[in-house]
Amino acid sequence: MDKDRARQLIDAAQNRDICDSVIRNAKVVDVCNKEIFTADVYIKDGYFVGFDGNRRAKTEIDAKGRYMLPGFIDAHCHIESSHLSPSEFSDAVVPCGTTTVIADPHEICNVTGLDGMEYMLKASENIPLSVFLMFPSCVPATAFEHSGAILNAPEIEKFIDNPRVLGLGEMMNYPGVASADSTVMDKMQCAWKREKNIDGHAPSITGPALDSYAAAGITTDHECETPAELHDKIRKGMYVMLREGTACRNVLQLLPGVNERNCNRILFCTDDRQPQSIVQDGHVNYGVSLAIQHGLDPISAITAATLNAATCYHLADRGMIVPGKRADFFLSSSIDNGIKAEEVFILGAKQAENGKILHKAMHTKPENVSGKMDVKDFSAAKLSFRPQSDHVKVIEIIPGGVVTGSGEAWIKRDENGEWIHDDGQDVLKLAVIERHHGTGNASTALISGYGMKHGAVATSIAHDSHNIIVVGDNDSDMVKAVEKLIAIGGGITMFKDGEELGTHVLEIAGLMTDLSLEEVTECLSKMHDIADKRLHVSKEIDPFMTLCFMALPVIPALKLTDCGLFDVNAFAFTDSEIK
Amino acid sequence: MDKDRARQLIDAAQNRDICDSVIRNAKVVDVCNKEIFTADVYIKDGYFVGFDGNRRAKTEIDAKGRYMLPGFIDAHCHIESSHLSPSEFSDAVVPCGTTTVIADPHEICNVTGLDGMEYMLKASENIPLSVFLMFPSCVPATAFEHSGAILNAPEIEKFIDNPRVLGLGEMMNYPGVASADSTVMDKMQCAWKREKNIDGHAPSITGPALDSYAAAGITTDHECETPAELHDKIRKGMYVMLREGTACRNVLQLLPGVNERNCNRILFCTDDRQPQSIVQDGHVNYGVSLAIQHGLDPISAITAATLNAATCYHLADRGMIVPGKRADFFLSSSIDNGIKAEEVFILGAKQAENGKILHKAMHTKPENVSGKMDVKDFSAAKLSFRPQSDHVKVIEIIPGGVVTGSGEAWIKRDENGEWIHDDGQDVLKLAVIERHHGTGNASTALISGYGMKHGAVATSIAHDSHNIIVVGDNDSDMVKAVEKLIAIGGGITMFKDGEELGTHVLEIAGLMTDLSLEEVTECLSKMHDIADKRLHVSKEIDPFMTLCFMALPVIPALKLTDCGLFDVNAFAFTDSEIK
Repeated sequence: MDKDRARQLIDAAQNRDICDSVIRNAKVVDVCNKEIFTADVYIKDGYFVGFDGNRRAKTEIDAKGRYMLPGFIDAHCHIESSHLSPSEFSDAVVPCGTTTVIADPHEICNVTGLDGMEYMLKASENIPLSVFLMFPSCVPATAFEHSGAILNAPEIEKFIDNPRVLGLGEMMNYPGVASADSTVMDKMQCAWKREKNIDGHAPSITGPALDSYAAAGITTDHECETPAELHDKIRKGMYVMLREGTACRNVLQLLPGVNERNCNRILFCTDDRQPQSIVQDGHVNYGVSLAIQHGLDPISAITAATLNAATCYHLADRGMIVPGKRADFFLSSSIDNGIKAEEVFILGAKQAENGKILHKAMHTKPENVSGKMDVKDFSAAKLSFRPQSDHVKVIEIIPGGVVTGSGEAWIKRDENGEWIHDDGQDVLKLAVIERHHGTGNASTALISGYGMKHGAVATSIAHDSHNIIVVGDNDSDMVKAVEKLIAIGGGITMFKDGEELGTHVLEIAGLMTDLSLEEVTECLSKMHDIADKRLHVSKEIDPFMTLCFMALPVIPALKLTDCGLFDVNAFAFTDSEIK
Repeated sequence: MDKDRARQLIDAAQNRDICDSVIRNAKVVDVCNKEIFTADVYIKDGYFVGFDGNRRAKTEIDAKGRYMLPGFIDAHCHIESSHLSPSEFSDAVVPCGTTTVIADPHEICNVTGLDGMEYMLKASENIPLSVFLMFPSCVPATAFEHSGAILNAPEIEKFIDNPRVLGLGEMMNYPGVASADSTVMDKMQCAWKREKNIDGHAPSITGPALDSYAAAGITTDHECETPAELHDKIRKGMYVMLREGTACRNVLQLLPGVNERNCNRILFCTDDRQPQSIVQDGHVNYGVSLAIQHGLDPISAITAATLNAATCYHLADRGMIVPGKRADFFLSSSIDNGIKAEEVFILGAKQAENGKILHKAMHTKPENVSGKMDVKDFSAAKLSFRPQSDHVKVIEIIPGGVVTGSGEAWIKRDENGEWIHDDGQDVLKLAVIERHHGTGNASTALISGYGMKHGAVATSIAHDSHNIIVVGDNDSDMVKAVEKLIAIGGGITMFKDGEELGTHVLEIAGLMTDLSLEEVTECLSKMHDIADKRLHVSKEIDPFMTLCFMALPVIPALKLTDCGLFDVNAFAFTDSEIK
């Protein structure tokens, strides 16, 4: 609040001045009393003035008895997962009723470091969606791979005072916290000394093991998988997020743990939500609707997606429809049976109607985040996989998640000991090629469960360091796919018999594009079709998203980084050969 | 949180270091899940480490199955009403389970201005009780009286950045807010620009009239008198306080409006609680117990007195028993049937047991706040009451509150027109003598319902400007009483036939004393006895507290300030004569 705005609101409230607009006949969702009441809601200068009272207004909007909800707040997301730049992301999620996101630019910062932070702040500055950032706490995610940057306390200090940076992003390094590792402590100190939040990420950590993590002032968690885990994290003072992303979906798992007693410690988030999921099902509204359809009290669910998030992140200017707060809201005919954002308003101005954005968000040209492809001496030789034995470990894709198995296979090798693809076996070669510092690093391993018969698929999205990852049955297509990504500055591409079957260009850090949600989903839809029809990738998995997680050395059991095959359970590199 | 403490807590949580203490076998009140669970609770360096886990601890305390509650937070109080200095106040309320108060030093600042603010901060700095202050927003309370200071935005700016100053105190000037008065706006701007709270005080303001007040970002109210008013204020985004003071008690009035849906927007406060009430019934624990005994869910009531207040005032380090928060807590055998703080711990150290403080709080010598008695040319002549007619207005005391009636009387006058006391009539003379700036101001009027037969009672506690107020049947005793207060620097005194019957010295600004709660209550008890037995003050009223409110020109209907008789309903001075 500032004096000029306060004066405008007070004058309008006291009927000394005319309001900008009034929403008549609205069923207002009151997240404080947790009830519905019917009112005319007055707005001035983008903020709520008050209810009823026969005030004057320049514009009248008839809500026709529809529900009026505070705009939804996504408590934790990675914009990069949408493949969209912040302006296009705004255009994609605002029509779903999301008006504020708390985003962790973990992916782009892993590639481009502080340039990524700078870009995300700048590109999200003057768009309808309110974008707040958490400074990524784990760049790189582990010491077992090469990311594009190393961000520690000195780097955090440069951004943490920005009022749009709300604290430190998901602290994935549980061992670092529990051991009071000094680098980790220095990072957290940046948030502590400013009383800013630290987001958590502590899958399966409960009981006494959780105490050190909670004692470190880590205030949220979005990785709960059971009601008991949710309950314990709330007991330790944390807010627990019900996450409904694309690969990870926990709303229904966690719902049995949520009740009228603890629901004000619950938030909603999307974490990683792919463009197709946004188009098909929506955004935060999807998770909220799902929870309601499965028994959560509608107003408690709405409160979790609004007031609770505003409270948790100290966003004092939003989260409820009350005088003096931002007029971010939407109208929906139903709250019991699917929340649909029929008309979405931000700062009192209508931004979307019936799922369509009305005015495209202002676009900011990406600077210092494009074409990040510093790959040294790449050639087929880098793809060599020559184990000492025919009996080897394979990364075993498990459909429906990002966890892999540690499988085995008996393989064919040529006279030089080089792996040869066996048509009768669902085993392919996987390679990770370092792309940030021209180290020349590349590593190879075998993978099962991908299903592809012949060809290669490569992507520069490979959590969390986002090196190039490529899968294939033959080196020739794999080389072409990798070379294509280097040439275009990143993306997803498919080759077969030397032919480029399809390419999705991600020119912003190899992670995102300036295309719109519609263009991205259309392209991806074609790509999926090709992966299915021409490459015969297993129908049980997403051909691209699955690949993205095969280099993530914090998710069990077997993963491949640019430095080699990694046994996550042993938290150490391992050999392919089974001796 | 800071790095050193975090490291200690983490090391203790991970069992690398020994904890300072463990509270074994406690029924912990979990205000997040709103449930009770049994645990061993570990503490290190004054903060909670965690639950169970067979850790080591230097000291073991057996809770023997008692309830373990977070220390209570008084969301709004005036320490001055206890007559105690901050250190003695700490000793008085900590044994009741209050470990944090948010105090508005409105009274002392009305007398001593910024010196009062300085003193309250300093005197509350190193005591067990956590004292946070709200900078008083209304000094003076009105323009119709002389207070000791005028505090506006420039004065607020000097203190508002102090981390123990949480914002602007109760904004009693509703008309000033509603009219966007520039002095009021400048004061509020001090809080707005730092995102600090502004406390409210808006009795009976609801509906559209409340909108401008809520739009100004005023976040709390402790003046609700009906469930409907409570409900409306919560709807406008405000936290509503259930107040249980001495003169004003709203818990039972408001309770029907509190339910499981809105209870996280409820706080508890004591506002003005007299020393006798603290001794007899307790402090915040009394209001909480009362609410529980009359049907509020015990854990919801406890949550209101702990987590809700911490949330509302952004006190991130307290309000719940979870790892990383201050180990401020107490043990109670019961929560359903009266909460009694049997053992009280602050920062993990036991401070009180069975209602007794264990170590007296460090006392700070009052500086620049003593003997504030600048009275010019006082003599019997100042007490002259010579109306133009025998038919006059009288201030009519109404037992049980601070509202007065506007009564009438036919009086006796001497040959000079001077009022003469009529033994057959319960009408006395009331005078207010300015004591801050030596203006020589004094005003007189008549008052009914006090009951005293013969003598005079005077006090330097006279809300909100705290000039000297004196009541009596004869000028001689009245003069002696006033002279006594001037001589001792303030307090309460009684005279009869020239004899000093009793005096309660309030040497700190004429409002507070360095005596202990026990000494104060003993003195007051004797004084009450004398007022009853020797002065025959009406048994329906408190002889001293009633007097304190007779100069408060914001409470209807008729009051007397140092500037004259004030008609609160007309908000203007008035004559005594009825024409």
